[in-house]
Order: sequence, then C-alpha cells, then structure tokens
Amino acid sequence: MRKNSILALLDEVRKGTITPQDGFKRLEALPFEDLGFARVDHHRTLRQGFPEVIFGLNKKPEHVAAIVRSLLPQKTNILITRCPKKVYAAVKRLTRKACYHEMAQAASIVQDRTIYGDGVIHIVCAGTSDITVAEEAAITARLMGNEVATTFDAGVAGIHRLLSIREELGQARVIIAVAGMEGALPSVIGGLVSVPVIAVPTSVGYGSSFGGLTALLGMLNSCASNVTVVNIDNGFGAGFVASLINRRQS
Amino acid sequence: MRKNSILALLDEVRKGTITPQDGFKRLEALPFEDLGFARVDHHRTLRQGFPEVIFGLNKKPEHVAAIVRSLLPQKTNILITRCPKKVYAAVKRLTRKACYHEMAQAASIVQDRTIYGDGVIHIVCAGTSDITVAEEAAITARLMGNEVATTFDAGVAGIHRLLSIREELGQARVIIAVAGMEGALPSVIGGLVSVPVIAVPTSVGYGSSFGGLTALLGMLNSCASNVTVVNIDNGFGAGFVASLINRRQS
Amino acid sequence: MRKNSILALLDEVRKGTITPQDGFKRLEALPFEDLGFARVDHHRTLRQGFPEVIFGLNKKPEHVAAIVRSLLPQKTNILITRCPKKVYAAVKRLTRKACYHEMAQAASIVQDRTIYGDGVIHIVCAGTSDITVAEEAAITARLMGNEVATTFDAGVAGIHRLLSIREELGQARVIIAVAGMEGALPSVIGGLVSVPVIAVPTSVGYGSSFGGLTALLGMLNSCASNVTVVNIDNGFGAGFVASLINRRQS
Amino acid sequence: MRKNSILALLDEVRKGTITPQDGFKRLEALPFEDLGFARVDHHRTLRQGFPEVIFGLNKKPEHVAAIVRSLLPQKTNILITRCPKKVYAAVKRLTRKACYHEMAQAASIVQDRTIYGDGVIHIVCAGTSDITVAEEAAITARLMGNEVATTFDAGVAGIHRLLSIREELGQARVIIAVAGMEGALPSVIGGLVSVPVIAVPTSVGYGSSFGGLTALLGMLNSCASNVTVVNIDNGFGAGFVASLINRRQS
Amino acid sequence: MRKNSILALLDEVRKGTITPQDGFKRLEALPFEDLGFARVDHHRTLRQGFPEVIFGLNKKPEHVAAIVRSLLPQKTNILITRCPKKVYAAVKRLTRKACYHEMAQAASIVQDRTIYGDGVIHIVCAGTSDITVAEEAAITARLMGNEVATTFDAGVAGIHRLLSIREELGQARVIIAVAGMEGALPSVIGGLVSVPVIAVPTSVGYGSSFGGLTALLGMLNSCASNVTVVNIDNGFGAGFVASLINRRQS
Amino acid sequence: MRKNSILALLDEVRKGTITPQDGFKRLEALPFEDLGFARVDHHRTLRQGFPEVIFGLNKKPEHVAAIVRSLLPQKTNILITRCPKKVYAAVKRLTRKACYHEMAQAASIVQDRTIYGDGVIHIVCAGTSDITVAEEAAITARLMGNEVATTFDAGVAGIHRLLSIREELGQARVIIAVAGMEGALPSVIGGLVSVPVIAVPTSVGYGSSFGGLTALLGMLNSCASNVTVVNIDNGFGAGFVASLINRRQS
Amino acid sequence: MRKNSILALLDEVRKGTITPQDGFKRLEALPFEDLGFARVDHHRTLRQGFPEVIFGLNKKPEHVAAIVRSLLPQKTNILITRCPKKVYAAVKRLTRKACYHEMAQAASIVQDRTIYGDGVIHIVCAGTSDITVAEEAAITARLMGNEVATTFDAGVAGIHRLLSIREELGQARVIIAVAGMEGALPSVIGGLVSVPVIAVPTSVGYGSSFGGLTALLGMLNSCASNVTVVNIDNGFGAGFVASLINRRQS
Amino acid sequence: MRKNSILALLDEVRKGTITPQDGFKRLEALPFEDLGFARVDHHRTLRQGFPEVIFGLNKKPEHVAAIVRSLLPQKTNILITRCPKKVYAAVKRLTRKACYHEMAQAASIVQDRTIYGDGVIHIVCAGTSDITVAEEAAITARLMGNEVATTFDAGVAGIHRLLSIREELGQARVIIAVAGMEGALPSVIGGLVSVPVIAVPTSVGYGSSFGGLTALLGMLNSCASNVTVVNIDNGFGAGFVASLINRRQS
Repeated sequence: MRKNSILALLDEVRKGTITPQDGFKRLEALPFEDLGFARVDHHRTLRQGFPEVIFGLNKKPEHVAAIVRSLLPQKTNILITRCPKKVYAAVKRLTRKACYHEMAQAASIVQDRTIYGDGVIHIVCAGTSDITVAEEAAITARLMGNEVATTFDAGVAGIHRLLSIREELGQARVIIAVAGMEGALPSVIGGLVSVPVIAVPTSVGYGSSFGGLTALLGMLNSCASNVTVVNIDNGFGAGFVASLINRRQS
Repeated sequence: MRKNSILALLDEVRKGTITPQDGFKRLEALPFEDLGFARVDHHRTLRQGFPEVIFGLNKKPEHVAAIVRSLLPQKTNILITRCPKKVYAAVKRLTRKACYHEMAQAASIVQDRTIYGDGVIHIVCAGTSDITVAEEAAITARLMGNEVATTFDAGVAGIHRLLSIREELGQARVIIAVAGMEGALPSVIGGLVSVPVIAVPTSVGYGSSFGGLTALLGMLNSCASNVTVVNIDNGFGAGFVASLINRRQS
Repeated sequence: MRKNSILALLDEVRKGTITPQDGFKRLEALPFEDLGFARVDHHRTLRQGFPEVIFGLNKKPEHVAAIVRSLLPQKTNILITRCPKKVYAAVKRLTRKACYHEMAQAASIVQDRTIYGDGVIHIVCAGTSDITVAEEAAITARLMGNEVATTFDAGVAGIHRLLSIREELGQARVIIAVAGMEGALPSVIGGLVSVPVIAVPTSVGYGSSFGGLTALLGMLNSCASNVTVVNIDNGFGAGFVASLINRRQS
Repeated sequence: MRKNSILALLDEVRKGTITPQDGFKRLEALPFEDLGFARVDHHRTLRQGFPEVIFGLNKKPEHVAAIVRSLLPQKTNILITRCPKKVYAAVKRLTRKACYHEMAQAASIVQDRTIYGDGVIHIVCAGTSDITVAEEAAITARLMGNEVATTFDAGVAGIHRLLSIREELGQARVIIAVAGMEGALPSVIGGLVSVPVIAVPTSVGYGSSFGGLTALLGMLNSCASNVTVVNIDNGFGAGFVASLINRRQS
Repeated sequence: MRKNSILALLDEVRKGTITPQDGFKRLEALPFEDLGFARVDHHRTLRQGFPEVIFGLNKKPEHVAAIVRSLLPQKTNILITRCPKKVYAAVKRLTRKACYHEMAQAASIVQDRTIYGDGVIHIVCAGTSDITVAEEAAITARLMGNEVATTFDAGVAGIHRLLSIREELGQARVIIAVAGMEGALPSVIGGLVSVPVIAVPTSVGYGSSFGGLTALLGMLNSCASNVTVVNIDNGFGAGFVASLINRRQS
Repeated sequence: MRKNSILALLDEVRKGTITPQDGFKRLEALPFEDLGFARVDHHRTLRQGFPEVIFGLNKKPEHVAAIVRSLLPQKTNILITRCPKKVYAAVKRLTRKACYHEMAQAASIVQDRTIYGDGVIHIVCAGTSDITVAEEAAITARLMGNEVATTFDAGVAGIHRLLSIREELGQARVIIAVAGMEGALPSVIGGLVSVPVIAVPTSVGYGSSFGGLTALLGMLNSCASNVTVVNIDNGFGAGFVASLINRRQS
Repeated sequence: MRKNSILALLDEVRKGTITPQDGFKRLEALPFEDLGFARVDHHRTLRQGFPEVIFGLNKKPEHVAAIVRSLLPQKTNILITRCPKKVYAAVKRLTRKACYHEMAQAASIVQDRTIYGDGVIHIVCAGTSDITVAEEAAITARLMGNEVATTFDAGVAGIHRLLSIREELGQARVIIAVAGMEGALPSVIGGLVSVPVIAVPTSVGYGSSFGGLTALLGMLNSCASNVTVVNIDNGFGAGFVASLINRRQS
Repeated sequence: MRKNSILALLDEVRKGTITPQDGFKRLEALPFEDLGFARVDHHRTLRQGFPEVIFGLNKKPEHVAAIVRSLLPQKTNILITRCPKKVYAAVKRLTRKACYHEMAQAASIVQDRTIYGDGVIHIVCAGTSDITVAEEAAITARLMGNEVATTFDAGVAGIHRLLSIREELGQARVIIAVAGMEGALPSVIGGLVSVPVIAVPTSVGYGSSFGGLTALLGMLNSCASNVTVVNIDNGFGAGFVASLINRRQS
C-alpha cells in the first residue's frame, strides 16, 4: 500500500494537482522509518516461516497476552521463551491454540505448519540437566518449519552412545550440540560429521564451571573446524541459526 | 574392499574351511579403526571439495613440503594457513601451482576448481587491521569451491558504508563478519539480513580489548538472533563453516 | 562570617589587643576544614542547580526522611535514587512535593525549576530492559535543570529506528546511550553525531554478558572517538555528567 | 544538487516525459548512500576544526605519507598518533609544516589555528610515566582549537601538589585526569571541581596492575559523580571528547 | 549371550541356511551400541566394587527412588550425593538398608562389603567448614571398598596438628587433602609423604576466595610434585580416584 | 610439667632403673605434638592480651555457646565476629558480661582490660556503607588492648574531611583505611602520614566493583609505599595485625 | 649415627658424668632439623627409585653442572627438565652417561635401571604441538622405573584413533592425557577406562585458549569421574604422580 | 622563614602600615602549597632515616645520576631499585660510595648508618627464584636502619627447614615472607609466630600461576590472621612497611 501512496503522489504531480516542489517536500517529509518499514514489509514476505518471539521472563502476564493478541492476526507462529506458567495461563485464556512445553519452559501458538527446511536438524545434548536448553532449541526449530531429531544424554564420557547414532548425525543438515561442564560434545560430534555444528554451552556444572564459562571457552577452542558457538544457555539462538542454515534455497 | 574381505570370511565359514568359532575370532580381531577407516573412506567421497589444510606456523619448511608432497596426488586443493614466506618458498620449489596470498598470510595449491557452493559468501570486516583475518576466511571459502564477495573497512561508527551494501548483503547465502575492538559489526549486519552471520572476533585493539576477548564477548551477546561465533582470529574456521552452510544440497 | 572572624582577629592585632605572635598562633590554630568549608560554601553558589542526591537502597525509611527534612530548607531539588516504595512513603508524609518515578525507581522533590542547560540532552536506550537505567539518567538531568529528550528501544540490530532519529540526535548537545548485552549502541550513535556520547552499560543479558561486563568492555573499546563510559547501571552518573557538559557557560 | 536531481525527476513526471510508475522506480533506485553522503557533506561544515587523525603504528611510512598528501588540500589540521620516527620522516619530506611531538609520540601538521573552544582544558597526570598519554591528549586538544593547561606529576599520595592547583582546576571547562597504578587521581580531582572529568587509565604499573585494568576499574567505580572513563592509554579519545565538551556553542 | 548370537549366525552361514551376503547384512545391522554394551557388561565384571552413583540435587524424590529401585537387584553399593532429606525419605521407604550421612549430605545403600583396596585412604581437611566435602570423599571411598582414615581440622596455620599425624600420613596409600581459603594444605602434606595427594579445593572463604578459585589455583601451583587436583567441592571425584589408585592389582 | 617428665626419665636412667636403650625408646615415643603443645603453652604466656575469636556465621547458637563456656575460665577476652543475634542471645544466657556491637555485627565478652598497645590505632573509612567492616576492626583492636580512634565517612572525593584530621592521623601508631568502590583512601592517607597503613577493601559498590575486587586491586597498586592489604571485608584481620604492630615491645 | 649420639648422652647420664639437668639441656639443644633429617634419611630408603630433578630453565650451565656433580655419587637417576642445550653440554662434559631428549627438552643421567612400577603408564596426547609436554611426562616416568607406552596425535575430533587403542588403554595401570585447546581428551579417555587418568592441559592454542586456561578449566570440569588435573604444561608433575600410583606395593 | 613572613605581615597590620582588610587579602593569597610545604619540611625531621628511593627501570643513566647528585647533600641514604648496570655505572662515576647489589638488582649509597629499628626484620623466601624480591626487601630494610635476618629456600613442601628456624622467627619484630607458585609460605609462618607477617607474592611460576596472581590470592586468603599483603614482586614495599613497623617509638 505504501507503494500506492507514492504512486498516488506522483500521479498528482503528473496531473499538476501539486507542483514538483510540493511533491518533493512531501516525499522528503515521509518519515524514514516508514520507508524502512516498507522494505521490512517486503522483507516480511521473504521471512515467511519466521515466528514472532517473545522473551517471557520478568514480563507481566497481561503484557505478554497483549503482545500475543496483536500478533495473532499475522497468522505466523508465536513462541514465548522462558515462559513462566502464569504467563502461559494468560495467553491460554486468549487462544486455545496455545501449548506449553514443560521441558523447554516455553509456550507456542502454531498457525503455520509449512515445512521450510530442507533436511533434518539434529539436536544432541550431553546430560539430563542440559535438556531444557536443548528443548528450547528444538521448539524454536520446529516452529520455524523444520524436521527435528533429538538425542539426549549422549555425553563424551560414554562415547558409545554417541557412536551409535553416528549414521543419523551424518544425515542431518545441521547439528546442535548442547553441553555444560567441560563442553567437549561439539568437538567429538564435529569430528564425526561434515555438516555445521552449532555449539550451545550451558550453565550446568559447579565450582570452576563458572556458570557455563568453561563450556563456552572449550567450545570456542574446539579442534573440530565445523563448530560455531552461541551464548551460554542460548537454545533459542541455536535453533534460530540452524533453521536459517537448513532453510530451502528456492 | 573391506566388504569383500568379510564376505570372503563368511564364504570360508560356509564352505567349512573355518569353523564358526574361528570365524567369530577373526571377526572380533578385525581392528576397529579399519572399519572406521572404511567409513571414513566412503565419507571421503562425500567430502569432495574439502581442501587439505596445514597450519604453517612454527612448522619447519621441509616438514610442510613433505606433507604437501604426500597430498598432491589426491588432487584436492591444499591450503597452508599462517604460512611464513620461508615455508611457502619450500612448497613453491615442489610445485609451480603454489600461490602466496600476502594479505591472508596463506599459501594455496589449486587442483580442483569445481564450484560446490549454492550462493555467495559475503565477508565483511570493520577496520583495515582486520583484513588479514578476513582474507584467511576468503581464501578458505574460495578453495572450498565458493563464490566469495568481500567488503572491507565497513565499521559500525560509519554506518552508511554498511547500509550502502545492504542489497548485496541481503543476497548472500551466508555472511562472515570480522571485527576487533567492540565487535559490534555482526549485530548491525545481523539486523539487516535474514541469513546466518558467522562472527569472527579479532585481536585488533589495545588496552581493555584484551587481545580480542572484548570483541568475542560482544559477539556472543549479540542482540541479533542469527549470529554464531568462532574463536579470536579464526578466519579459517569461519570460512570453513560458511562453506558447509553454502554447500549445495543434492 | 568566617571572613569576619579573621578580620576581627586582624583588627585586634591592629589595635594591639593581641600581639602579632599571638595572632599567628590563632591563625595557625584555625582548623583547616573551616577554611575549606568556607570555600565550599562559596562554591555552593556556583553549584546552583545541583540537586541533593540520596542513594535510597538499604537505607531505613525514617533515616532517609530525616536527611530530606534537613535538606528541604535549602530550596534545591532533591533526588532519591534506587528508592524503595517504603522509603518514598516516608518522604511523602514529610512533604507533598515528593513524586515517585516508577520506571526510574527514584523519588524527587522539585523546588527549583530554573533551566541551567544550554541545549538538549538526548537519552537513547537499546532494549525495554534498559529503561530503568535510562530513566534514572533522565530524572537526574531534569532535576539539574535540563531539557531532556528520550528514545527508548532503539537497538543496533534494528538500525532503521536509530537512523530515523538521526536529525534529533544531531541537534542534541550531549547524548546518553544506554545498552546491555553487546553494548554496541554508543558506537553506532557516536558515528552519527559530533557531540559527546556518554555510554552506560547495563546488567541486562545472561550467560557471558557477565552482569554487564561485556557491555562495559565493548563501550570502552568503541571505534567512535566521542564516547566515554560510566559504571554498569550508573544512570545517575551519566545524567550528572551530561548536565555538567550541557551547563550554560556564563 | 541532490535536491535538484529529484526536482528534475518530478518535473519530468509533471511534463509526462516519464510515467509515475517509472518515476517511482527511479526514486527507489537512488542509492541510499548518496542521500547519506549528502548529509555527511553538510555535516562536514559543522565539523570545522576537527583534525584528520591517522593511527601511525604498524603502518608503512609511504602509506601514511600518501594519506597525508591526499588530506593536505582540505586545510584542516592533521594528527598522526603513535607515530614512529620513520613515519614522521616520510611525512616531513612531504611538507615542512610537519612537527614531531617527542613526548606524545605524535606528529602534527597545523593548517588551522582558529580557537573553537570556550574555556580551558586542563590535563593532569599522576606520574612521570603517564606523561606520554597525557601529552597525546594535549596535542589532540590543541589541534582541535583549544587552550590547554597541563599539570604533570600530581599523584594522590602527595595531595599538596594537587591542592595547590585547585584554583586552576576550578577554572577549567573540562579536566582530563591521567593515571596508572590504582587510578585514584580522577576521584580526588572530581571532588575538587564541578566540571566534567575525563579519566584515562594508563598501563603504567606492574604485578596486579594488569596492564592498566586496575586503574580502569578504579576509575569506573569513582566515588565522584562527575567522572567518565575512556580506554586504557587512550589519550587521543580523552582529548577528542574534551574538545567536544569545550566547543563553543554558537 | 551376545557372543552366542553371533556364533548362531555364523552357524547358520555354515549350514547354508543363510548366504554369506545375508550374513554380512545381518552382521552390519547389529547395532553398534549392542556390541558396546556387551563389552560394557564384560567390563562390568572388572568394575566390581564400583558403586552406582546418583547426583541427588534438584532431582525429584520419586525420580531418584525409581532409579534406586532399578539398581537394587544389581547388588552393588548405591551412593546418592548432594542428597536432600526429602530424597532420602523416598529412598528409605523403598529399602531399609538406606542410610543417611548428615555431614556428607549423602545417602548410601550398602550391598557389598568386600574390601577392594590395598591400603588406607587418608582424608585430611583444613577447617571445620570443609568437613562436608571431606565426608563426601570418605563415604565414596568406603562404598568402593576401602579402609578410610580421616583427620579433620588440620590447617597449615597450626602446623603441629599436621606434624603429629605425619606417621599415619606416611602409611597411607593415597591422601585426599581438602581445603578452602588459600588451599595450602596439599603442598604441606605433599612435602611430608611420598604417596599421591589428591587436592580438593572448597568454596569455603569470602572476598577474594572467589568461591574456591583461589584454593583451586593454589593447589594447581603446588610446589610439591605429588599433588593432583579435582574441581572445587568435588569430594566425590577425589574419593573415586583415590579408590582407583588404592585398588588391589590382581 | 613436660620438662619434669623428661627430667624424671633422665633421673631413672641415672639411677639405672631403665637402660639408656630403653630411655632412648621412651624419648623417641614422646608424641611430637606434646612437645609442640608445651611450646604453645609457653607461647600462650607471650600471647597475653590475645582474644579468643569465634567466627559466628553459619554456626548453631548452642554450638557457639558451648565454645564460649569452655573459654570463659581462661579469663581472656572473647570475640564473636559475624555474630547473628540468635547466637548472641545464646551467649548472653551464659554470661551477663556478653555485649552486642550492632554496627560491627559482633559480640564480645571482656575479661581483661589491660592496655597492651603503645599508641593509637586510627581507623578511617570512606563511606557509611563501609562502617560495618571498620567497626569489626575497631572492636578487634579494642579487645586486644588498644586505644582506638575512628573517623568514618572520609572519602577521597571530599578531601577536606581527610585533611582536617591530618594531625590526628599523623599521631597514630598505625592506621586502618577501609574503603569500597575505587579503594583510593589508603593511597591518600598513605601520602599524609609516615606510619603503616593497613588497607581493607570492602564489597561496597555495584557493577564493575565486582564485590570488592576493584577496591582490592586498587589498594595493592597504591602509589604510597606504606600500604599493605588484607582480604575484602576482613575488618578482623586488619584490627588483629594493627594490634600486633602497636603492641608494646618490652 | 644420630641414635648413637643420643645413646652416648644417655650413657653419660647413666654413668653420672653429666647430671639429668645437663642432659636435658643438651637434648633440648639438639637442633630440630637433625631429628627431622634423620627421619628424612630413613625415608630416603623408602624413596628408592626417585630421581633427583633439576629445573634447568634460567639456570647457568656451570651451576647445573655443579649440582649434578654433587648428586652423581648417590647413584640415583638424574633428570634435568626444561634443559637448554648449553646446560646439557656442560653436564655432558661432566659425565658421558648424560643423554639429551630433544622432544622433551630434557636431559637425563641413568644410574638405576630397576623397574619399580607394577603396570604400564600410558601417555596419550591430542596434537603434535602437545608432544613436548607428553615427552616430559614420559621421560619422568621412565627415570622413575616404569614401563611407559605412548600414543601421540589422538585428538577427540578424530575419535577412531582413540577407539583403536582402547584395548591398550584398558590395560594400563594409569593414563596421562595431554591436550591443549578445549582439553576434551581426558574426558573421552576417562569414559573408556576404569583406571586413574591424570590430565595435563597445555598452552597450545590461540585466542581464547588463554595460554592453556581453557584446557585447564575443561579438564577440571570433566564429566568422567576418574580424572585429576595438574598445572598447565606440567608434564613432569604428571609423570611423577603416575609413577607414585604405579609403584609396586610391597 | 615562612612563619617570619606571616609575622612580618601581622606586624605591618599592628603598625597600621596595612589595613586588616588588606592583610586578609594577602593572607588569603598565600599559596596553599607553601603552608603545606612548611609542614612537610617539619615532617622531614620526623622522617629521619628514610632513604630517598629512585625506581631505576626505563630511566636514562644520566637522568638518574642527576637526581642522585641533587640528593647527595641531604646526607640520607639513597636506594635505586630495579637498577640496570648501566644506570649504576653512571651513579658510580658520581660517587665512590655507590654499591651494587647483584641479587637485589639495586644500587645503594649509604650516608647514614644509624639504627632506627627496635628489633630484627626476618625475611624468608620459598625458592631460589624468589631471592631477587627478597633481597630487594632486605636492602630496603637495611638502608632504613634495621637489623635484617634472612632465610632463603624454605618452602612449605619441606616443612623441616621452616621448623628449624622457628626460634629465630619467633624473635623477630616483623617477618617478610616472599613466595611464588601457591604462595603458602606466609600462612605457615603466620601460624608459627605472633608478630606481623608481610606477604610478598612473586611472579615465579608458570601456567596457572598467572604471573603471581595465584600467589597473591593465596596470601590474601591466608588462614593466619597476622598476614598482610603487598603487590606482586614488591620487595621494596615490604621492606618499607616492615621498617615502619620496626621503627623505635621514642
């Protein structure tokens, strides 16, 4: 519609209803962000399959519900990460489509079930305590239209578990490796496959794990060349980038 | 051939030349790594277009030359990163195909010019001092069969430079953003595009840049969701992962 | 009056009531701090427009109320930062002029509405979570007699929002840029304007944001030359220095 | 001229030489950076008195000389920080106006002697080893058209030296306080004056001074509210911001 | 039994019931982890005397109880570290053999009282606050079939206490030294004996003890050559390794 | 008495009741710690005026009371640092001599009012929040028989307050300087006097004060040569060492 | 002989040549260290097979040679770690038995070829750059009378290499795992065996490897329970402790 | 003379040559530092026995010589710490009294041999590499008029060496304990004596000793209450404070 308003303006100039000088002034007066927004809108179409994401922590239930209400008509998927149950309850009252994902501590509203991804995103995590982060990555990737496989509890100190899924790992388009403590999982997986591995350090551990810093540093210094890293506990970011990597190229 | 030797064994069992018990023992005795190696070999075929990479720093020229000599018959591309000129000289004596990339401080031997990538890998760096790392990423991506575009000297404090290439950035399949100091470049680029951005912190800076740590932390905490990070100055790793992301899915 | 007592002393010397030797001893005996205090008092006049500031956290309501009671007669503005509601209630009972600023978690008593500032102090923050700190800076600057403009929610990953206010930013006398996570906002703003930018890192973030350390380091390493930095979450300090910069030079 | 070309376009639309649709396309095609550049140009005029700055370290003499040659016709001042003597020699061959500032390890070419500043910038440093950084701040401020006063060797462990210049400090428009080791100087100065104090930590010290980190942290935690901080050893940045603060408001 | 199924397969090949080709396929199809599991099982026998260990913290009582129920038939010892009392209560309802170790904050179920160790494991700790960690090491070592001696409250600032047990220390096969604060205990003990000393830093301390980091670093830099280190507060790990060192070599 | 038992033994040897060989064995058998204890006992006499000190935090009231009961007959002073009110209540029930020091969060039982110190210990602190630590130092020094002077709220940003007590500072035998934030107080005091200054960093501050680390580092890097440092918030340690310095040399 | 002198003393007491009182004084006067030394001497016998170790770095060749000359008559093995070639040359001039170990940068003099160890010490390292440290561990263990096996270049990103030696690893009495970068090797090995694993972080790496800190932290947070850690690059310490663990229990 | 000029002024007032008002103005105009200087001068007398100290590192020989020349007439002792041999040579040419202390890397000029100290300062260091720092402390203490005892090479891993000097340690007025690596020495010594112990961490060590940080942290967390700490390698500071503690109280 934005294009239309500019065309209308140019039409008026053509008709002589307004002078070129006035036309220039009106063009100039168009706030920049509108132009930006227009591009973003156009952009939007390219961004089909991108969910709207709300960080739920420390937000008031009614506030989140209001945001969700305004987003519902867009018919995109909606994801609420770090979503307290009270927040979910408020959203659930709004729409019966809302689901709660206990493990991921996230809520979702699915309005678009298209598959935008080419292959499989395989999410592996080391210990049972890392599952929350792994699940956040999984729900993100699913809401972005991907097929997701998960292997939980496959730490490097029990290498057989990992070797037994080597075939599946090799068939993934991209792998997300989630681990706390020493964060060695991405290195071992990276050596088994030749696809990108997104490493997510978790704050699981104690003492000199320093809230995930040790795992983070370990992953950044991986001896496997196909590993990149996101912030500590950032399951959402990993799921998001994995989805971009997996996105079908038209 | 590995399959054949197992079949031969089973055939002997069938013929009664050896007993099942002996067959079991011989099966058991097959060294594990052989099996693994077989898979790796098979794997190899999938890995077409992967260069052989040698880390040149602190290696003796004759040592690197020997490795190169053994690799030449494979007809894959060969990359020597952090390659001192003396090392290059030794390799050049071995083969006239060797080239030196001054900016990247790398040497290459091109034997495979196939394009394995789908789209363009766009490499952006912030300051002139970051170019070495950006060029290492570029030469890596080129040797892995990708079309590479580069925009150097596009720091966030001069945002227009960055905005003027927005179109090109938007058309890339994956972007590598290289920056030292505060490391803000990937965040700004991440907000302009909807493809994966691989952030490479560099050790450029002084005082509280702490040899790249500040840039690294900044990138890990990017407010853009499409950013992942590799180690400080790891241009090779960024080029490698970008190539995996860009690789054509058959 | 201090001047008077010295004059009186000198007068006694002149009259011969006391000898020069005794005069010397009494001069010597004048406690240093008195002299200092005199200067401070004189100084006071120059400091017109400076509010009295009380750090409210962990202080008892009645204690803060007592301080406020003793300050009220000075007719300067009074600011209570990090002010719990209980503390505010105690102050409100004392004077109806007390106001509470929910967002800034601060209380104020306005007794002086003079404008001491030359131009506009523009306060920008990156995310909704940074608003508390930005508002603390705003209320400080307002109480110090400045015209204040604010733009909240203008992060670098959505660069258009920032570009759309470029004009306003360019017209400010000084800018306060508040950001958590990677802390890139001041660098981008610094590149758009040619006035001083005071950067305030916030403790917003998680994982490797390390309670604001990452933002702090990023800001200290800004590639824009017009950026200086204050402590993490120190909105008050930023508002204070911005007011000093903006103060009209008579 | 940019305005003219848009007017011309609109005029063509008015005349019917081109259709509104084509006009829209051509408007859309106008490269963004042009618009930006225009503003930057306009901006330029506002930036009168800003020197061109070249970071000399690790640059080749002929490279720096080439940059200087291209800048000379602009008739602005030129500053080369961290300038090795070899680089200076190459510049000196280019123009006799070049001067070397031994203490600041900087070279300058003065082409504009206008005073743009309102008041005095007073630069204080704690120890003799901090003088290099203090002098870099001083030469920067002078090249930007400011009156500069300096007091070197005024550490907090000899408080009298500092108190004896209190009057002068009080008359400055802005103060730059340079210190290594514990970095206490800005706090003490901040308590003596009511103007902005820009603190510059230096890498002077040993053991747990950690290359200036201790001084940096000390300055960020100053109990004086009028202190802001720049990066370790960043004398240039301090001089630059001080000049912006001191700049006469027309 | 696994061996039997492979033998059976080979037998079928021998008999001609299946062809070598089909035999190959079925061999190939045997999931790797099974083979691994078999080895692990075989391994199990070697691991006699190894307790099953459950980390009790943040686990639900019924969850831990379920794990314990499934482990009970193995007749190995069971150890629940960091075991809240509620968790213990749930386990106690399951089996009367469960015991709670108040000091170690651990629960145990003893089903195997064999002594697997050669000598004595001597556990020393520096202060009363370190006893929890020391006791966790002790209960671990005891459940793994070792004779354990303990000396608590033997800090280096009261060296006589330590010297008075020199004889006993000298007779141990391995020593566990537990200490917080400066973590000097292992160095002093290491100088008194010629057996391995396992150092356990604890998070006891305040201020610059940084949650055990200072003790950890001190122990890693011990001037005694017979000291190795485990993670902060990792009494279990120390007890585990000490048991491996002390295990009788058959 | 220990001496007596050895003499008795030698006497038996002299008398021939036991042989030299048996005498040797009995000498050898004398447990080392006894000898040590003897020295400690003797030592005790030298330690007149040393209080018994109990760290009250996280200890059970009845436990502390039991310790106090066993110490009371020694007639030395008793100090309970970090003493919760419940612990104090339990001690108060035991003896009416117990006093609570609200500011220092400590309890004391005075049984020895001798003055063991030569001069005055002057304790200075920077801000009102540092008073707890300063008071812990003061009560420690008083219980160890010293005359103590205190000056609270004398921060370096208000240098006049500090200068006004220069005379008193100069007359102290030793000074304890307590400060959080940038920790500059000991440097300024150190420059004003020529006696030892014990610096106590406090955890007062926020953001990059890192729980007292910044103050600690600042104090360790003091440009005044007469400054030594104790751990963060360690008022007790400072009071203890100051007492040792001030102790009258007989 | 020490015993004799005490016996002689007691004999004199018996004979009445000296009084018990004088005997007591002479006993008391016996310097403590003598008694200690006696025990040490006795101890010595137990320490058979312990080499004398000299840290060669920064020591003068003639100084090291002098130490070696004094040690030669003891007939124990002698190890010089971090031994520059010049130092070795000086030692070689002293004795033809001296050998230089290029890889380990160590020199040795073998005078005792007894095997004191029970089993095999297996030393594994991850990359070619870690070999120096691994070799230092190996030469230490060999000089202490152990059978040593080594597997170099077995990083976790090529897990097959590691799996192929699983059998050998399982047969070792103790394993030393040497790795830089992310330091994941000990975790993977720890999961494959049930013997103690001594982890040695190396300073190999760049960027955020922080001189071995990342590897060190990773190893301390190993998810395998049988791992203990020594200081960065401390091959000697690892070899020493492994020898103590492997030492035959008589 | 300063007093005289004030008296003269007062005399003029008395005579009526100047009015009290003018007298007040002239008093006010007296620069503060003069007053301060007067006090400092008076102070000087109290500072008898304080050497003049020059930090020699990175200073030019002729510069140091010039400073020494200006100090010689004061007849105080002169100490040049971190003194390169070239600097010493320049000083030696100036005065034959100059001596070089190889171990301490310091030069001294003794002009005052008075003993200002009460008791003995005992300096202990752990390893041979710490001797430089220990000697710097010793030469400082000697030049300040103290009797100094030294015990080098008394590390905590060989506790007998330390115990054998317990008597001497107990007789010292103050002890300086110098140690690198884990820095445990001051804790052990602190437990043996009841005098102040000044701990000096040294940068001796490697890997996670982090240039002395580990020793520094260890000393700050000493479990002995009589320990205070100075900066890494700050032998001068330790010697200086020890001298202040030992100074005879008149």
